Amino acid sequence: MALIVQKYGGTSVGNTERIRNVARRVAGYRAQGDQVVVVVSAMSGVTDNLIKLAREIVPLPSDREMDMLLATGEQTTIALTAMALHALDLPAISLTGAQAGIVTDGVHSKAKIRNITPQRIHELLNAGNVVIVAGFQGQTHEGHITTLGRGGSDLTAIALAAALEADLCQIYTDVDGVYTADPRVVKNARKLPEVAYDEMLELASLGAKVMQSRSVEFAKKFGVVFEVRSSLNDNPGTIVKEETESMENVVIRGVTLDKNQAKVTLVAVPDKPGAASRIFKALAALNLNVDMIVQTSSHGSGAKATDISFTLDKPDLPKARKTLDALQQEIGFTEAIADEGIGKLSIVGVGMRSHSGVAARMFETLASNSINIDMISTSEIKISVVIDLDRGEDAMRVVHDAFLGAGA
Amino acid sequence: MALIVQKYGGTSVGNTERIRNVARRVAGYRAQGDQVVVVVSAMSGVTDNLIKLAREIVPLPSDREMDMLLATGEQTTIALTAMALHALDLPAISLTGAQAGIVTDGVHSKAKIRNITPQRIHELLNAGNVVIVAGFQGQTHEGHITTLGRGGSDLTAIALAAALEADLCQIYTDVDGVYTADPRVVKNARKLPEVAYDEMLELASLGAKVMQSRSVEFAKKFGVVFEVRSSLNDNPGTIVKEETESMENVVIRGVTLDKNQAKVTLVAVPDKPGAASRIFKALAALNLNVDMIVQTSSHGSGAKATDISFTLDKPDLPKARKTLDALQQEIGFTEAIADEGIGKLSIVGVGMRSHSGVAARMFETLASNSINIDMISTSEIKISVVIDLDRGEDAMRVVHDAFLGAGA
Repeated sequence: MALIVQKYGGTSVGNTERIRNVARRVAGYRAQGDQVVVVVSAMSGVTDNLIKLAREIVPLPSDREMDMLLATGEQTTIALTAMALHALDLPAISLTGAQAGIVTDGVHSKAKIRNITPQRIHELLNAGNVVIVAGFQGQTHEGHITTLGRGGSDLTAIALAAALEADLCQIYTDVDGVYTADPRVVKNARKLPEVAYDEMLELASLGAKVMQSRSVEFAKKFGVVFEVRSSLNDNPGTIVKEETESMENVVIRGVTLDKNQAKVTLVAVPDKPGAASRIFKALAALNLNVDMIVQTSSHGSGAKATDISFTLDKPDLPKARKTLDALQQEIGFTEAIADEGIGKLSIVGVGMRSHSGVAARMFETLASNSINIDMISTSEIKISVVIDLDRGEDAMRVVHDAFLGAGA
Repeated sequence: MALIVQKYGGTSVGNTERIRNVARRVAGYRAQGDQVVVVVSAMSGVTDNLIKLAREIVPLPSDREMDMLLATGEQTTIALTAMALHALDLPAISLTGAQAGIVTDGVHSKAKIRNITPQRIHELLNAGNVVIVAGFQGQTHEGHITTLGRGGSDLTAIALAAALEADLCQIYTDVDGVYTADPRVVKNARKLPEVAYDEMLELASLGAKVMQSRSVEFAKKFGVVFEVRSSLNDNPGTIVKEETESMENVVIRGVTLDKNQAKVTLVAVPDKPGAASRIFKALAALNLNVDMIVQTSSHGSGAKATDISFTLDKPDLPKARKTLDALQQEIGFTEAIADEGIGKLSIVGVGMRSHSGVAARMFETLASNSINIDMISTSEIKISVVIDLDRGEDAMRVVHDAFLGAGA
């Protein structure tokens, strides 16, 4: 008998038929004698509708009231999921985040979990219930309802798995698991049976979109092993866990392409101390996520100056431009050029730690396919390059072939 | 400076534009320096949609999970209402029933309020907030979410007014107040400036539909004076309060017609002890609300037998018929005849206590208009007659004219 925490995202509970499917899957585990805690998101579309309602009333709703509003989405799903289990004659009881003992700090709309008191859940499980918990939400010590921000339901599941000392944590989603590359682009991409937390973190932050980084970080911190798998079939998914020695035998785990980046080049920044710091402080103050930064000597006039290039999320470009325009005169660069036609191609793998020549092989592969590299950044387990967006998918395929293809 | 509790029903908060209207009204009271507690229902249609979702999953959802589900309706409205007040630059904070300190018993779907701890609301009011409370809901001592059943939001408002010792309790609805008769039927019906609790109770139970009896009973028990008024205009409404001496000068307060009753006649019930008791016990066990009962000597054979007639709510007729069919042989009546073509006309007024001849005048009025009386029942402040449904509205007009018309 195992204690399993299962999380189902918005698509997996998107209508009453799908909620019944979730109940059937849970019933299967119960029939094996397992105890099951189910964490659910709001039904897909519900949160967006609530946001739309709020915006009809006020352009910038208060975070506290937004949390009060959005928390109803998951509360609706837990009640319906409990009913679906009752329809299968399984005892089940739903709990809001607050009722489940999830206490957060008071930062509305992106609260952090402070602690979880799992007493009540244990009691309800031991009494034979399936326990359904609302994802994405908690309450403060003072009793205000909070939400955990993007990816919050995954976080609820992983934090509950830690607090309950669950044997297994399953994250059900609409993909089969984590792949060596996006299977829509790379036909021979393979599902990975396992990945290390650090690899998953790089993949998450690189836009693989399976999970938010914070949930993976939380799992890593508390040693929660979890499985990412599909709610649409019974295929085994991908296990995410602490790095093992055998993992290092694989040089790279996956290839990702982030099409959502833009590059900004500041031309002829005067080479004075503090200029770069001024610029990036101003961008940081806007919470803009600046990623790669490259500084090169300018092709400008005889005066001492450099070009500074950096990448950031495409939607942040207008905000960044406004700030840069305001700074232009003060800092003294001649121009800020934005380029939305870039892609960031990355390879990730803990095996890089013990294998040399990985970067060289990547660059060589790209060069031999006439794909030009614009910027480079590396970490211990990741190499990223900025390339022309038009060649992005080609690049993904050739690099995948080189490292992960059938002949690799 | 007064402390005012205002309740807005589902129609009054039916869309975001109406919620903004509610906020503007509240702002008007705040501008006068009043403290305001706002109780809101679910937006009209929301509760029905949730019930529909639940029914898609299971025909008879558990009451606990239904409460969990339905409570989201009011929670949505409180958040939106708080936002609408923020849009007018008014500090406002929303509270679920649980957060507002409303503790109920554990009878899900029709919980009774056990007590209210108004501490938190007082603190929030004193800090300058408008406090928005979710109607219709509370929580048990064990922390389960409960709902109060039909008319529950009125009850929340009246109970809060009692607990907060409010100066004023306003029930905003889609009618202007309580009328001497339904203005759609009786053209010269007048809005009543005030009615006594007992009169309001009779009017409520007679189907005047302005409020549920239980809210009025609660107000009477705790001496909460409240006003029923429209959220669509600024007209003063009807004050509901303890009977005063001056009220007795008015013989009758209003005339109502209940078209939702049916009459059942059991023909030739053998005149044996316990026969009637058997029948009405069986109907009571089904929670059928039997109203008027009349027993007459039968027009049947020479054997000792009586006819028993009673009225009940029309929708309950199929259930009642099933039970009566099952009992027919055992009790030995020859037939159960149902008549859906009846109306119950009533006049209500505490003035009846001190005025004689009211019944006679009512019967005379009906007789002189050739309207036949089928059954009669009276209480201290009410006289009801069953008449032909086809003559119901005529009867209402002539009786209204006789007691409440311009010349009366």
